[in-house]
Amino acid sequence: MKFIHTADWHLGKLVHGVYMTEEQKEVLYQFVNIVEEEKPDAVVIAGDLYDRSVPPTGAVELLNEMLFKINVELKTPIVAISGNHDSAERLSFGSSWFQHSQFYLKGKVDDQFSPVRINGVNFYCVPYAEPGIVRQLLGDDSIHSHQDAMKALIGKIEKEINHREVNVFVGHAFVLGGKTSESERTLSVGGSGCVGAELFAPFHYTALGHLHSPDAIKHETVRYSGSLLKYSFSEAKQRKSISIVTIDEKGVFSIEEKVLKPKRDMRIIEGTMEELLDPVRIQSEQTEDYLKVTLLDRGAIVDPMGKLRQAYPNVLHLERQLDVIDERKKESYGMKREEKKSELDLFADFYYQMTTDSFTAEKRKVMERVIQEALLEVNQK
Amino acid sequence: MKFIHTADWHLGKLVHGVYMTEEQKEVLYQFVNIVEEEKPDAVVIAGDLYDRSVPPTGAVELLNEMLFKINVELKTPIVAISGNHDSAERLSFGSSWFQHSQFYLKGKVDDQFSPVRINGVNFYCVPYAEPGIVRQLLGDDSIHSHQDAMKALIGKIEKEINHREVNVFVGHAFVLGGKTSESERTLSVGGSGCVGAELFAPFHYTALGHLHSPDAIKHETVRYSGSLLKYSFSEAKQRKSISIVTIDEKGVFSIEEKVLKPKRDMRIIEGTMEELLDPVRIQSEQTEDYLKVTLLDRGAIVDPMGKLRQAYPNVLHLERQLDVIDERKKESYGMKREEKKSELDLFADFYYQMTTDSFTAEKRKVMERVIQEALLEVNQK
Repeated sequence: MKFIHTADWHLGKLVHGVYMTEEQKEVLYQFVNIVEEEKPDAVVIAGDLYDRSVPPTGAVELLNEMLFKINVELKTPIVAISGNHDSAERLSFGSSWFQHSQFYLKGKVDDQFSPVRINGVNFYCVPYAEPGIVRQLLGDDSIHSHQDAMKALIGKIEKEINHREVNVFVGHAFVLGGKTSESERTLSVGGSGCVGAELFAPFHYTALGHLHSPDAIKHETVRYSGSLLKYSFSEAKQRKSISIVTIDEKGVFSIEEKVLKPKRDMRIIEGTMEELLDPVRIQSEQTEDYLKVTLLDRGAIVDPMGKLRQAYPNVLHLERQLDVIDERKKESYGMKREEKKSELDLFADFYYQMTTDSFTAEKRKVMERVIQEALLEVNQK
Repeated sequence: MKFIHTADWHLGKLVHGVYMTEEQKEVLYQFVNIVEEEKPDAVVIAGDLYDRSVPPTGAVELLNEMLFKINVELKTPIVAISGNHDSAERLSFGSSWFQHSQFYLKGKVDDQFSPVRINGVNFYCVPYAEPGIVRQLLGDDSIHSHQDAMKALIGKIEKEINHREVNVFVGHAFVLGGKTSESERTLSVGGSGCVGAELFAPFHYTALGHLHSPDAIKHETVRYSGSLLKYSFSEAKQRKSISIVTIDEKGVFSIEEKVLKPKRDMRIIEGTMEELLDPVRIQSEQTEDYLKVTLLDRGAIVDPMGKLRQAYPNVLHLERQLDVIDERKKESYGMKREEKKSELDLFADFYYQMTTDSFTAEKRKVMERVIQEALLEVNQK
């Protein structure tokens, strides 16, 4: 039995104001080609098919097209659940019809704990759900955290599970030990969003979604496939792939990762304006990539973004070296230093972050006066 | 061949701030019962399944449930198109899968003009589309109005149609001669939203959606089924029904209307506060209905809505007799009289419309002062 484990497609995603739809279409076509070549027994999508509960119509059409190619044209069963970015109710529409062609889409968590059975393997599907929903569903007032909720749900599954068969869990959760990146929206406040990997012990393989790196957790049987694309610059160094899982009748499996290559990579580069605009460097660069640029110049530069975009049209974010130095300061002085910053310094930080312009002595003077006036007014009240 | 013609479900509709979901569920259950009893060969839904492009999740779940009952549980083919209130793209999701169980859902207008064939009858489905979309689709720059667009689309159909077979058109349009009500959003500015009934001559029966009354147009073969429910007080006197169409192999048909009864009717009542709160009257009233009340009292009444709702909990709109008199004045004096109104009178009108409270002499004085001050200020500038 061979299945493809993927997750976190985030169709309709905006990164720094740019829709990723074209990139997503590109890698999904690669994905469909892999399905065509590999002829897996199933494709498992572990949540966050969309980036938001009401995705743009282009994303709806793209998902429809891709799933139709995989499921109907290539006759490949699909097992999919909703993630925290999906609307469970909206994603569920039509799912009762989809089953006919072995497309098993579980949007809402419910009290049906029977697995989807494909080629002798049982897939237990648990879509993302807030602890409150699971508390209500199971009528168990002791459920408060994601850990409680997952434990209770797996407890229900354990009552039915046949341990002599091969059992795979499909879920969308923040499993303990994972690293987070900017684009993984925090599931819950505090530590209660985490779920311990030990809960998944009853399963031969656990196909997770939510964290965007395939290396997010080091565990023998509990795995993230990682997202389809890099969705933030904090993921710039992650490889993006899908996992081809081959599992035997005893539940012993091997993994092969297939890398997906978007038209434009997402990278961080740095240098002075002169270095970055050097024709020799430009020639060797993939200038169309989505870039975060750290400018190392110290002086004032007029319209740095405009200049850079003439050579690198898809610069999405620009930082000045000054910010970097500040970051280093923060680290060496620690948080106490941070707390003692004057209003003027705090504003200067804010100004750098917002504008990437230089906060000149002249600007500093103006701001100093504004702050003094404001403080005076506050003290008079 | 027998099919049910229905349209304008408007799931997710809000009327005066109240969701109609419960009423819709109630009449849809009656509808499913009719399908079960009548065993039609098809159910035709001529657009506006939802009330808006992004309907509330409760509406999405209700539509899913009802269509599943009809199509899968009762094994009844469904032919449905999108209307101007639906999002063609969102409604289309999954439609390729639905066809397997003879659920033919056409969200977007396209260049496929072949009909859906059920029991020897051809259903030509044309979802609602703006003229610009059709202009682009057909590459015909002469298309500017809905009339142009429909003519061009039917022209394409006519190239393929077999007139020896029975042909039914399913569309969503404002066909000339129809009466409009408040809840039918205007399709287009000016007269270009209208489509002439003569265009549908090639079809034995034309199943329309958009206008909410089954009497909207008097035509032998071009018909509106009317909406599922009354969706505005301007529809208070319309009957709401579905049409059971029995059509023979020559295309000769007969219609039977089945009335749908919501839990709460939508009605307009009038009287003085005393008359309306008379226990004898209350006993004979369906007090739970959605009501528009015209109060005939002339004097001031404190919290008239609060008083009425104690007896009639679902009063949605309240008008004072004063408004009615004003309306009459307007009509008899014409618009010129209106233009000469003083600021104070204009405000008094506004006050009546907004509050239904009496605009007392005391309030009048306060407002007089405010207006004088304001005029003074304006003149000084």
